[in-house]
Amino acid sequence: MSSVTKNPISWKGYAIHDNKHYTDFKLIDFHPKTAGDYDIDIAIKYCGVCASDHHSIKGGWGDTILPLIAGHEITGIATKVGPKVTSIKVGDRVGVGAQICSCFQCKPCNTDNENYCPKLVDTYNAKYPNGDLAHGGYSDGIRAHERFVFPIPDGVDLADAAPMLCGGLTTFSPLVRNGCGTTAKKVAVVGIGGLGHFALMWAKALGAEVYAFSHSASKKDDALKLGADHFIDTSKNGFSEPLAGEIDLIISTASNVKSLPLSEFLSTLSVHGRLVYVGMPEDNLPQVTAQKLSSNGCFIGSSHIGSKKEVLQMLQFAADKGIKTWKNVIPMKNVADGIMAVEKNTIRFRTVLQQDITEY
Amino acid sequence: MSSVTKNPISWKGYAIHDNKHYTDFKLIDFHPKTAGDYDIDIAIKYCGVCASDHHSIKGGWGDTILPLIAGHEITGIATKVGPKVTSIKVGDRVGVGAQICSCFQCKPCNTDNENYCPKLVDTYNAKYPNGDLAHGGYSDGIRAHERFVFPIPDGVDLADAAPMLCGGLTTFSPLVRNGCGTTAKKVAVVGIGGLGHFALMWAKALGAEVYAFSHSASKKDDALKLGADHFIDTSKNGFSEPLAGEIDLIISTASNVKSLPLSEFLSTLSVHGRLVYVGMPEDNLPQVTAQKLSSNGCFIGSSHIGSKKEVLQMLQFAADKGIKTWKNVIPMKNVADGIMAVEKNTIRFRTVLQQDITEY
Repeated sequence: MSSVTKNPISWKGYAIHDNKHYTDFKLIDFHPKTAGDYDIDIAIKYCGVCASDHHSIKGGWGDTILPLIAGHEITGIATKVGPKVTSIKVGDRVGVGAQICSCFQCKPCNTDNENYCPKLVDTYNAKYPNGDLAHGGYSDGIRAHERFVFPIPDGVDLADAAPMLCGGLTTFSPLVRNGCGTTAKKVAVVGIGGLGHFALMWAKALGAEVYAFSHSASKKDDALKLGADHFIDTSKNGFSEPLAGEIDLIISTASNVKSLPLSEFLSTLSVHGRLVYVGMPEDNLPQVTAQKLSSNGCFIGSSHIGSKKEVLQMLQFAADKGIKTWKNVIPMKNVADGIMAVEKNTIRFRTVLQQDITEY
Repeated sequence: MSSVTKNPISWKGYAIHDNKHYTDFKLIDFHPKTAGDYDIDIAIKYCGVCASDHHSIKGGWGDTILPLIAGHEITGIATKVGPKVTSIKVGDRVGVGAQICSCFQCKPCNTDNENYCPKLVDTYNAKYPNGDLAHGGYSDGIRAHERFVFPIPDGVDLADAAPMLCGGLTTFSPLVRNGCGTTAKKVAVVGIGGLGHFALMWAKALGAEVYAFSHSASKKDDALKLGADHFIDTSKNGFSEPLAGEIDLIISTASNVKSLPLSEFLSTLSVHGRLVYVGMPEDNLPQVTAQKLSSNGCFIGSSHIGSKKEVLQMLQFAADKGIKTWKNVIPMKNVADGIMAVEKNTIRFRTVLQQDITEY
């Protein structure tokens, strides 16, 4: 049994030591951040495998702090709470997503936009202002300020909730902020993967007419089951023509943007329609002319996870609507299989690691 | 005296015959479009020289229909109205902007977005569906459907009104549609030229705190006179740092986008702030990474002139606020000087041609 509920000196996690050998996970000891009055210790039960993890451990987004324990779709049980914590008590079912801290002082932090805090701290491959390292959820424990610890409502399974805390939120936030189901009646989702499968389920449940855009006809059946009203095979010439001016909002979850038919996507947008990238490609976005944007006055943007307020809204929405993650649960020691399922695009649609280091 | 009020067979205009010799204007006869029941004939008094004219006559945006009579910032007097015209009567002071027709049937046309009609007809270098050519305002007359003919309110001089109908509207529309002075409290204008000088005046009068972004320190005095609260010299390293996250809306009027410090501009935007290109560069827009857009959830877009509803709103706003075009009025026969003033960026801020072909 772990001593996590007493006075932990270290936890254990599956780390990679070299970006070139990014599936070579080794179990290491690590120290959590210095305990603060608002901190909560969590005994990890589940952690989702996000495409971000794959990018990060490969060094695709830049240098990494090695050894690196990835994972930012974390659920578990609160085992210790700091003296000033008010929102969570020991024993609560809780989660942590892709952000572990922010400055608490800036305008974004004060307007439910802490996910846009310029000083935000990522859940792993990051340092706190005091130099403490932030380690992720491919491990048996994590410590976080209560602002970044979310209660999981009854009716949402911990294994389902884990991937929602990054993959789910990353699509829920831009859908809601861009009027899905209200001002945006027709919503398209590009890419039917981890993010895309959530986007389809949310968009449908939010009341939109939903279009799945995919260049893989093999995903049609799943897309329709997830809630798409229409499946558009974007590998076909002229796919966009019948949709010209029809779509109010496109959420692009594709990680590989080089081959995206961006001009065709933009031509499907209604006046002032928006395309929001949430897949974070390693390359520059495809170029466009101003004329391509001006013909319908459309916008291209992006979005970064979501706020705590939106996490709570999303989890309750999932409970109310009975939305469940399409997942494959495997032991955490097999994390390399989860990474390869992302790389080979074989997972339908999220690998969830069941923590197997410490029996809580 | 012209026979325009009787039964005109042709009008006259200053045309270019070769994109390579784009300042070699020759006076030619031309036929207006076939008269329709809703058409209005206009005796032209003034026509602004827009940067679009410079792009178009050079062939910078593609092939042109030669000979080409440019000009789409037109004011004059209605001399004849078709039997079904209800909004204008003979003798009224009227104007025509950069759009001369649309389909009247599509969703944009039916929602005060006719400026985004997929079948819109430009005022020159364009053909009507029946094959009639559309000729511009470097001429003594123009005929247009009443939807695209705008009454000029008392209090706005015809010479001032002309450049407002493209240059003014092109900035007024995205300012108003993106909440200038309401949701967008801090507004920046990139480029202090024909479009930019209108953008500064509108933004200030709409109640925003206004930032002029220019790489020409020589424009500081004018920018401040036009209404800018702050002048930001974008040629200085680090100019964007004190503004990080501050600006809600950027209107970019620059035609040459290759050298724009786009990443720095985006870094000045507040959460979900927007950058709207209204200068129509001949090149692709600069590339960005999705990460650059996601850090503040910002949007890049564009806009196309504006709707009739907005023209009327803008002209009344100009009348109410006493906003006047900064202009240099020259005889229409000197149109080449107006074009060169655009090319050499010497005009402060709009050349207006006074029609000198026919004395009405």
